[in-house]
Amino acid sequence: MIVVMDAKASARDISDVIARIRAMGFDVHLSEGKERTIIGVIGRGRPIDREQIGLMSGVQNVMPVSHPYKIASREYHPDDTLIPLNGVQVGGPDLAIVAGPCSVEDRTQIIEIAHAVREAGATALRGGAFKPRSSPYSFQGLGEEGLKYLADARAETGLPIVTEVMDPQAVPLVCQYADVLQIGARNMQNYTLLHAVGESQHPVLLKRGMSSTIEELLMSAEYILSHGNMRVMLCERGIRTFETATRNTFDINAIPVLKQASHLPVIADPSHGTGKWEYVESVSLAAIAAGADGLILEVHHDPENAQSDGRQSLKPEKFAALVEKARQLAPIVGRQFPVRETVR
Amino acid sequence: MIVVMDAKASARDISDVIARIRAMGFDVHLSEGKERTIIGVIGRGRPIDREQIGLMSGVQNVMPVSHPYKIASREYHPDDTLIPLNGVQVGGPDLAIVAGPCSVEDRTQIIEIAHAVREAGATALRGGAFKPRSSPYSFQGLGEEGLKYLADARAETGLPIVTEVMDPQAVPLVCQYADVLQIGARNMQNYTLLHAVGESQHPVLLKRGMSSTIEELLMSAEYILSHGNMRVMLCERGIRTFETATRNTFDINAIPVLKQASHLPVIADPSHGTGKWEYVESVSLAAIAAGADGLILEVHHDPENAQSDGRQSLKPEKFAALVEKARQLAPIVGRQFPVRETVR
Amino acid sequence: MIVVMDAKASARDISDVIARIRAMGFDVHLSEGKERTIIGVIGRGRPIDREQIGLMSGVQNVMPVSHPYKIASREYHPDDTLIPLNGVQVGGPDLAIVAGPCSVEDRTQIIEIAHAVREAGATALRGGAFKPRSSPYSFQGLGEEGLKYLADARAETGLPIVTEVMDPQAVPLVCQYADVLQIGARNMQNYTLLHAVGESQHPVLLKRGMSSTIEELLMSAEYILSHGNMRVMLCERGIRTFETATRNTFDINAIPVLKQASHLPVIADPSHGTGKWEYVESVSLAAIAAGADGLILEVHHDPENAQSDGRQSLKPEKFAALVEKARQLAPIVGRQFPVRETVR
Amino acid sequence: MIVVMDAKASARDISDVIARIRAMGFDVHLSEGKERTIIGVIGRGRPIDREQIGLMSGVQNVMPVSHPYKIASREYHPDDTLIPLNGVQVGGPDLAIVAGPCSVEDRTQIIEIAHAVREAGATALRGGAFKPRSSPYSFQGLGEEGLKYLADARAETGLPIVTEVMDPQAVPLVCQYADVLQIGARNMQNYTLLHAVGESQHPVLLKRGMSSTIEELLMSAEYILSHGNMRVMLCERGIRTFETATRNTFDINAIPVLKQASHLPVIADPSHGTGKWEYVESVSLAAIAAGADGLILEVHHDPENAQSDGRQSLKPEKFAALVEKARQLAPIVGRQFPVRETVR
Repeated sequence: MIVVMDAKASARDISDVIARIRAMGFDVHLSEGKERTIIGVIGRGRPIDREQIGLMSGVQNVMPVSHPYKIASREYHPDDTLIPLNGVQVGGPDLAIVAGPCSVEDRTQIIEIAHAVREAGATALRGGAFKPRSSPYSFQGLGEEGLKYLADARAETGLPIVTEVMDPQAVPLVCQYADVLQIGARNMQNYTLLHAVGESQHPVLLKRGMSSTIEELLMSAEYILSHGNMRVMLCERGIRTFETATRNTFDINAIPVLKQASHLPVIADPSHGTGKWEYVESVSLAAIAAGADGLILEVHHDPENAQSDGRQSLKPEKFAALVEKARQLAPIVGRQFPVRETVR
Repeated sequence: MIVVMDAKASARDISDVIARIRAMGFDVHLSEGKERTIIGVIGRGRPIDREQIGLMSGVQNVMPVSHPYKIASREYHPDDTLIPLNGVQVGGPDLAIVAGPCSVEDRTQIIEIAHAVREAGATALRGGAFKPRSSPYSFQGLGEEGLKYLADARAETGLPIVTEVMDPQAVPLVCQYADVLQIGARNMQNYTLLHAVGESQHPVLLKRGMSSTIEELLMSAEYILSHGNMRVMLCERGIRTFETATRNTFDINAIPVLKQASHLPVIADPSHGTGKWEYVESVSLAAIAAGADGLILEVHHDPENAQSDGRQSLKPEKFAALVEKARQLAPIVGRQFPVRETVR
Repeated sequence: MIVVMDAKASARDISDVIARIRAMGFDVHLSEGKERTIIGVIGRGRPIDREQIGLMSGVQNVMPVSHPYKIASREYHPDDTLIPLNGVQVGGPDLAIVAGPCSVEDRTQIIEIAHAVREAGATALRGGAFKPRSSPYSFQGLGEEGLKYLADARAETGLPIVTEVMDPQAVPLVCQYADVLQIGARNMQNYTLLHAVGESQHPVLLKRGMSSTIEELLMSAEYILSHGNMRVMLCERGIRTFETATRNTFDINAIPVLKQASHLPVIADPSHGTGKWEYVESVSLAAIAAGADGLILEVHHDPENAQSDGRQSLKPEKFAALVEKARQLAPIVGRQFPVRETVR
Repeated sequence: MIVVMDAKASARDISDVIARIRAMGFDVHLSEGKERTIIGVIGRGRPIDREQIGLMSGVQNVMPVSHPYKIASREYHPDDTLIPLNGVQVGGPDLAIVAGPCSVEDRTQIIEIAHAVREAGATALRGGAFKPRSSPYSFQGLGEEGLKYLADARAETGLPIVTEVMDPQAVPLVCQYADVLQIGARNMQNYTLLHAVGESQHPVLLKRGMSSTIEELLMSAEYILSHGNMRVMLCERGIRTFETATRNTFDINAIPVLKQASHLPVIADPSHGTGKWEYVESVSLAAIAAGADGLILEVHHDPENAQSDGRQSLKPEKFAALVEKARQLAPIVGRQFPVRETVR
């Protein structure tokens, strides 16, 4: 249930409605938009008396939410959510490009790649220190050492850090180093972890599970949002289908569907979405044309010898060429690249 | 097996190689490219003696084909295949836009829509006279009457006709009216039909089956090509996955994969690929950005009352807006819209 | 819409109702069950006047059909449909076992295998003369020659023949040789072919398309049934999923779902459902335990050298062992193996 | 790499080989079978010198493992792993039946159901205290209170408890109450959790992720096994496909595939595998016929009012009828029901 307040409702009207809802045994979540305030009613209890609320001063409309998510929905929060990242307002006209290696392998590697992606126009640096791997015998990442190298790379280039956290207990540690916490596809329904990153109040990049529906992605986002942590970016990274020519099937439809259903920014990951570097540029441009708010891309200076995901990593020069094409494409779909010092 | 002839090979060299292959009990298919001729060895028999052929005059290389399709592969035919359609060379820089209703419903309807899509810049008119429907109780199309209305619409607008044929025996009839024969998704592996349209030597738009792999699509194309009918356009129209927010999952990856594996043009069908008109523009732009050679779109002047597929049909004004955006996007990815009389 | 007649309705009552429905511009399909007659109203026209029909003599109930198929539904035809095959009533307590090679390769091969499967207890012989193959360069079957060898095998063993027909025009030819026409998975939505086998009035084994839903299978059956050809067996043969350990994913759920939704017999094809002979016995027993009315199995005396599907073909001795286990399992789920002369 | 020791190898031979492998910088995992000992070489380092090890006393064979899992493979551990549960050796001839409600709702409910399933022949009681739910607004379980009620139910009926753990930090708490820790489908690749339950040395029921391959399931098991915790039961619970007639598609093929690839017991969950109670009996019998070592089933005395999963829950009398049929089926596939006091 959400209560849509009139554009002219007073602060007093709003606090009265909140008090009444709380008195009925529910929790409340506020969405203060440009035009009006919307009050989300959260929790389970006696069925709420819509009519009673509807008659209160300043209330325009009381309506049920037609989705199993609430705070994530555009009904509840009509304006786009903007999340600041290195001078870019992710979700607004500026496109964000997050780039870097799959795994942090050593200090030299991450710093070298950070410089390369910054030169080419990246907004932020990605790199995994904790790696979820299907096999316990695959490289599992450098752990905190990797986080320190990421911090070094940030110190050298100014690029903020996007890195994955897998363990709820490790959230405080990763928050010390990361600017954005990444939740990987395998953990999209790891609710303990979602609660932990929600509580952290740190920005989050939430990847869609490889066979999760769009609605399930939004319900997982709702877990984070329900802690009042509104800085959630949704990430389409390809789904699992019968097709074997590519590693995953990038679900381009998900971009307009998510933009219509939710106010949260949508980031595309064509590296995982295709699994082969030669298709990454085409699908990156497609994602921007379809309305994505940004890209996250795997870039490696030596893909043949990468510890992981070399097959889908772009070399820095290919990445630079892709960014250049994206820059040209952006205005056609009403987007732009930020003009800022870190990009020349 | 393919025999790559030297750029300087003489006509005599080529005919000698062909004669030798035939003498070994195989058939031959010729691909005469800009730079060189490639000879495809077709059929089953004793293993062919590669060395013997390799020593003949004018032969540069004899190599196995690494795919279960041969004529459809870029290895065998490195240059893009161009298929003329109303002044556009489909597969070249010009983008082709095929548009019209799902079904031909009556004479007035198809002529009205034909005018509207022509005004907006369509290259050709689509419209179904024979409709494959899951239920025998759904509208099955007007049959030959529908074909006649399509011919009337062509006479009035100059737009060539793309229409589906389902029955091998009906191929000669449909060829009388259609400029391009469409093979629907459900018939992608209807081999009797593929042979029939191959023999017809008519241009073909071959839709990918809803759960066919990209490789299977190319093998089905091979059935048509093996009759020497080289005018085959491949069509990505969405695949069946677990996602239910959209009717199908448009496989954007398929576009660069097909363009890399084959020389045949690739047309995108975002109407079926999404199943909801509100997502069609985003996915159409995405398809062009990813490298598609054209679009096929469902347009209806009264979608609410359409006999079929109203949910995914654009109104003419939405279609015109989409074409306008596509026109702006085209040059970014090295494409263009044809400047021709039929478009003002 | 279906009209359920009272158990005591007279022939005159029934013919009156039929006449009234026809007068309203609809067609009629009769289902005469043990207990009562049900009249299916087929076609599109003005909405039918339920109340008017409901008041007629002998009418118990007039009700809409809640599925897009009608004649195939259990609502319309509550009793199990029984289809006679070599002394077995397929769909009744007797289990039917159809067995034989994927392709007829030569006269000796098919006769040798026919003897082997008959010895082991098979009800009928399968063998492909027309083969749908993804690649035009794969073995396409022996054609009519193969049909003749099948007829020879029947003459020698008494086993009726189940063989595929792919081309609507070939239906009369195949009917001359086959006891049951098989529609392959790739042709499940080849409506021209479905109409042709419907008109033939020959028994049909209809395979589920590799990514067709259960409802789509029943709608395809409806195409055949709508010609008054009620002898349709449904075949679950595995669906296409992301899993690659097996060729297809045998959908065991489909068996109870189909038995609940429809009165038609359900045959399981664990050979295609798994794609590997070593899993065929387990899945065959599973299918019977789940309620299948029979099995169709690929058996070959020399799988390593089979022209097609050798990987999933059982050797005759493995087949005999499987039948023996099935024989023991049958009574547990209320089924039996027929005691008849052809089995010793 | 695994080192297969000769049947006659001495303890000294074995310890020498282990010492040599450790000296090369690897870890070692021992599998002591009835016939011979197999030594698993774990870890990454310099390539191991196979020849050198192969020449040592008592070594029969040194071979690479052809899978990305090692301890889970039958190559490494040819004998079936047996896991004791309430007098049953799960993985041996005895079939195990785990039954109970989806969620523990209150003390009376769980005790009533526990009595009912024990009467009908259940081996163990299932019931969720911590519930992973797609939506944060769905019932999340009673938490520790629920665990206490489960313990009460065990005290009253003697049935051991199978219950889910979602949070790595909660593992010690859940171990206090549970006899078997369940890892839910959504957490199959929650590696932090897998490590935690591995370290706990508690028996584990590991559910297959809804779109995880069979190989990925075995790799997840490997995470647990690599801690020396060998008491892992694998659970097939249906995968996500395009089919919507059922909640999931129960992958019956997975049962023989897992039994061939691994020595671990395989438990079937037809409740989630179908999502509708009316199909549960058929698929349960199918699973046993296919070789499953047991079943896990949702049973509720009042499914219409269940807090979760009522649609797929059997009433106690339906459950009892299912067990009775399973008891009859068991001997046909070489299995049995345990004769023990708790079952009458």
